Amino acid sequence: MNKIEHIGIAVKDLDAAISLYSALLNTKPYKHEDVESEGVRTSFFRMGEAKIELLSASHTESPIAKFIEKRGEGIHHIAFEVSDIDAEIIRLQSEGFELITKTAKPGADNKLIAFLHPKSTGGVLIELCMEVS
Amino acid sequence: MNKIEHIGIAVKDLDAAISLYSALLNTKPYKHEDVESEGVRTSFFRMGEAKIELLSASHTESPIAKFIEKRGEGIHHIAFEVSDIDAEIIRLQSEGFELITKTAKPGADNKLIAFLHPKSTGGVLIELCMEVS
Repeated sequence: MNKIEHIGIAVKDLDAAISLYSALLNTKPYKHEDVESEGVRTSFFRMGEAKIELLSASHTESPIAKFIEKRGEGIHHIAFEVSDIDAEIIRLQSEGFELITKTAKPGADNKLIAFLHPKSTGGVLIELCMEVS
Repeated sequence: MNKIEHIGIAVKDLDAAISLYSALLNTKPYKHEDVESEGVRTSFFRMGEAKIELLSASHTESPIAKFIEKRGEGIHHIAFEVSDIDAEIIRLQSEGFELITKTAKPGADNKLIAFLHPKSTGGVLIELCMEVS
């Protein structure tokens, strides 16, 4: 784990949340991206070496729609940058952590990503991500 | 807002969480601190320019005990570093954000801190913090 790459925040209305977070962070988003395979629309703000990622559902079966239905809007996950995602998955499995998907897959922002199951991390959804070169 | 200063994670058993997060982050905590005025025991891990702060309740009336009772263990707050906390409080109030305490107060890790109310930030508890020189 090298650094916090981003914090993902689940929001109902992406446009309203962009206004709110632009006022809060005193900066504008630098990127919008739809990830249809994940059912999410995203906006990114830079904050030091990390990012804030707003996530809204693009359809009712989206994991974000289900999260908001269960927990309400709020912090959805923490993403950590790793140098070698395959090696990190093997290391974490050997420590007893459970992966949601067994192998890394493409995510937003030109990254390979994998999620750890919150039941193995004290209730925190954790994403590993590695820049695709 | 300069950067993400830390992410606060509410845990039931601090010693168990220190073991879990040491394995997860592949590093040891660099500091432990009790903040009796806030009813919390804390441990800090460095992660790039930011920190992960584990928070456990030091008594049953602690805000962390109440949070865990209501929401379960998990991410409690995001803290942003600011250069001038009084000026930032005034700026955020003028943007319509609501502060939990009207003025900054001493917190853990040699900081002046203030919290924004989650009802004004889309469900996210946000801390402002400024290093005390």
